[in-house]
Amino acid sequence: MRWDQGMNGAESLIRSLVEAGVTTCFANPGTSEMHLVQAIDAVPEMRGVLCLFEGVCTGAADGYARIAEKPAITVLHLGPGLGNGIANLHNARRAATPLINLVGNHATYHVPLDAPLTSDIETLANNVSSWIKTDSTATSLAGDGMKALAKSLSPSQGSEGRTATLIIPAEACWGEADSLAAPLPVAGAEVVKTERISEVAKALSPRSMLLIDREGLKPEARLLAARIAAKVGCRISMTTFPARVDSGPGHPMVERLPYFPEDVTAAMAGVEHLVLVGAERPVSFFAYPNQDSVLVPDGCLVQRLAAGHENVIQALKDLCAEMGAEAVDPPRYEHQSLPDLEGKLSVRGVSNVIAKHMPENSILCGDSGGGAAVLAPAQVSKSHTWLNLTGGSIGQGGPAAVGAAIAAPERQVFALLGDGASMYTNQALWTQARESLNVITVIFNNQIYGILETEYLRLGVNTVGEHAAQLFNLAEPAIDFVKLAESMGVPGRRAESVAEFEVALLEALERNGPTLIEAML
Amino acid sequence: MRWDQGMNGAESLIRSLVEAGVTTCFANPGTSEMHLVQAIDAVPEMRGVLCLFEGVCTGAADGYARIAEKPAITVLHLGPGLGNGIANLHNARRAATPLINLVGNHATYHVPLDAPLTSDIETLANNVSSWIKTDSTATSLAGDGMKALAKSLSPSQGSEGRTATLIIPAEACWGEADSLAAPLPVAGAEVVKTERISEVAKALSPRSMLLIDREGLKPEARLLAARIAAKVGCRISMTTFPARVDSGPGHPMVERLPYFPEDVTAAMAGVEHLVLVGAERPVSFFAYPNQDSVLVPDGCLVQRLAAGHENVIQALKDLCAEMGAEAVDPPRYEHQSLPDLEGKLSVRGVSNVIAKHMPENSILCGDSGGGAAVLAPAQVSKSHTWLNLTGGSIGQGGPAAVGAAIAAPERQVFALLGDGASMYTNQALWTQARESLNVITVIFNNQIYGILETEYLRLGVNTVGEHAAQLFNLAEPAIDFVKLAESMGVPGRRAESVAEFEVALLEALERNGPTLIEAML
Repeated sequence: MRWDQGMNGAESLIRSLVEAGVTTCFANPGTSEMHLVQAIDAVPEMRGVLCLFEGVCTGAADGYARIAEKPAITVLHLGPGLGNGIANLHNARRAATPLINLVGNHATYHVPLDAPLTSDIETLANNVSSWIKTDSTATSLAGDGMKALAKSLSPSQGSEGRTATLIIPAEACWGEADSLAAPLPVAGAEVVKTERISEVAKALSPRSMLLIDREGLKPEARLLAARIAAKVGCRISMTTFPARVDSGPGHPMVERLPYFPEDVTAAMAGVEHLVLVGAERPVSFFAYPNQDSVLVPDGCLVQRLAAGHENVIQALKDLCAEMGAEAVDPPRYEHQSLPDLEGKLSVRGVSNVIAKHMPENSILCGDSGGGAAVLAPAQVSKSHTWLNLTGGSIGQGGPAAVGAAIAAPERQVFALLGDGASMYTNQALWTQARESLNVITVIFNNQIYGILETEYLRLGVNTVGEHAAQLFNLAEPAIDFVKLAESMGVPGRRAESVAEFEVALLEALERNGPTLIEAML
Repeated sequence: MRWDQGMNGAESLIRSLVEAGVTTCFANPGTSEMHLVQAIDAVPEMRGVLCLFEGVCTGAADGYARIAEKPAITVLHLGPGLGNGIANLHNARRAATPLINLVGNHATYHVPLDAPLTSDIETLANNVSSWIKTDSTATSLAGDGMKALAKSLSPSQGSEGRTATLIIPAEACWGEADSLAAPLPVAGAEVVKTERISEVAKALSPRSMLLIDREGLKPEARLLAARIAAKVGCRISMTTFPARVDSGPGHPMVERLPYFPEDVTAAMAGVEHLVLVGAERPVSFFAYPNQDSVLVPDGCLVQRLAAGHENVIQALKDLCAEMGAEAVDPPRYEHQSLPDLEGKLSVRGVSNVIAKHMPENSILCGDSGGGAAVLAPAQVSKSHTWLNLTGGSIGQGGPAAVGAAIAAPERQVFALLGDGASMYTNQALWTQARESLNVITVIFNNQIYGILETEYLRLGVNTVGEHAAQLFNLAEPAIDFVKLAESMGVPGRRAESVAEFEVALLEALERNGPTLIEAML
């Protein structure tokens, strides 16, 4: 360690990241990360955001990057710290979010001694990382950080994701560095060959469906795809859980594939040609006895226009040109007045009130349990950005809202959470209070893991037995989300009727900083 | 699935486990575990305990097994569910706790489709499992469960642990089973050879130290070791964080190695012969610049009497016989009156009040942050069982208390938690309320990650800068632990003085079910 003799590895890393534009760090450090903390202290351009649980760090980094379109770093404490972050890193991988994990490890010579916190961090990181480096030295660390950055920004194939994990031996942090490192060139996305464009163009018919995801959902791409669909007279749909969707009145209308396999099958009935635009072919979320897992109609021709790692926008431009669809104005969402509901609160009541009152350009972070119902009224009410739960690992919405609010402090963020889902990472509330984030958390509180009861009944049983019910039911004891929020410094309100919810929401929108509204369903 | 035609794989597994004596399940299931839930519903002898976060499941299974001396099962949802459980599985591995994870996976044919929740669960499980099986079928599943059980009960080498992880393809649960499976024989611990006993006996002198851990800490073993030490006139110490220690007045006196390396070095000064009794040689928890990691004095002879996987008790019996120490009565803790402190609450005040009022045979679950101070007064006050944080992965104490209380409903359990540590797994409170567990949670609330500030200052910096302080400080906003507890159905009290703490504790002891006391330090 060289506090008085110059820059150590940790500081060279943090300074290089800052100079490359990476300025946000979601941290839950431990002893092995103390030199990284010292470096963050020395480099005020790096905003260090403390999270009380690592799943909040990783989910926040995911939400941040989906909005900022550049990575944040996490600072995690050895294997267990990374372990706590894995569930949301799984979601980030599925979202292909650029993300850099800095995981502190013991000094290299300390690892073989098998001290209590020792574990095989690299093996653990494998599951959620597209790039891992474990053997940095003090003089290589800044450069390794630039490699991580470049990897996180590079196109990634399939579901490998864009998470770079730097597992840093302690001596690489405390040893003397010799210089900063400059950003490395980032590979561009591969351009799709003309032949493939022509093949798709030839097969397009009113019985086609364009299925869009990833880059294919960016506003420019979505408009191109919608023009093509309008010209052909075919359908256009997004996948069930795309990472980010910018939508609202004025945006081209795009269907969304449903969740349950039988509903997807119904939605795809009559589709004879499926064109994958940054998307993969639809498969069911889970396997079920006696149900197909691949949800493409029999005999349907499946063509890939562009994979997620290819240049989707260019492919759409080329196809649009080939189809002569550049000037087509596709059907767009138009503003509609939403019906004013009354009486006891319902999912629809919550959804309509949010869609009606949310400011233009709000960010909506979903999770499991109810929140997805806001999508339909939001489409016809206000411009917004939707961040989905991409990997099915619940407990993502609250942390993602933290990251989104830090990436876009001028925008109103909503975390739309099921009661069960919210509990996995309830510590996100504390960071929202600490950082005075403009996050309104809405708990869709039905006092049950509702999806599990539904899935259980889908198994063919007619009633839920007492012991099974105990594994779904969240009513005994009922969780008091108002108190939970207040315990972490977030004002909370409970609403049992539509009118109460509306009052609570308007009050929350008046306030700077976070609020939680418990919607009793 | 064969609801109407007999037993499916899931039910054959759960029934076989129950018949083998495994009757407790800590669950956070998802869709892929619905057939396991159905089986638990059909087999009421299996107690299903719902936890709202998987780290609570795994920590509870660890605490349960440390008390019950037999494994519980967890039910976890694919890779992300296992991921959330990893931090406490790390602690369980370090504690060599018998534990069986049942992790639901997609059906085998569904995995290659790469649906959103798909991940490489086996790789993830590697870090925390001594045994893994991924390819069960409906007819092999019950037998695989018996293999997992036998593995979890078998002696384990070094830090490999005794966690068996069964990653179950969905079709193995829903497919038809043909029979139950019977328990398999469990390998006994290897007996240490006479030569090694004699070598240790020869080297023993008043400059020796017996370092005990694992089986060496069981009451019978501890008494044998203490007899040997008394006969020789040498020291006897336990490691810093043994998994379980039964102690109190009447138990032989045993030192405990301190935490910081310089304190361990000071404690071991003058030791010329170190005898490892179920323990490993002491190494520092973390590496520090310019400090040795191995904490054995120069020139000290290190001998292993018995490793953790060997028959430690037999080795101690043999050594005791060889030394002629069988009849020696070693120094024992005697009951002492603890000083009645007054005024503002302190760690010592909290500790003395707990030690004074806790019922005989209480279980004390530690974590990071303050709770360890209860150990000294408890030794001279009441018989008790101490469960330590073995792997340094904080957030273990609350979940361990859940498991301990379920294993021993007749005993009073204390969860002694730092404020920071408690937040990782605060969901443990809900399960304590749901199951009406006799757990008193004491939050040692100093509004900071105190250990990090200490470690930061140990780096050689004299003051903690503003940005660094923001990564340690938990005071902005202050967490209201009384509200947090109440939000999950646990009554809470705040104490600022010793007198208030004493009143709150006596009140909590009167009550059936859980309480949380926030001790303001």
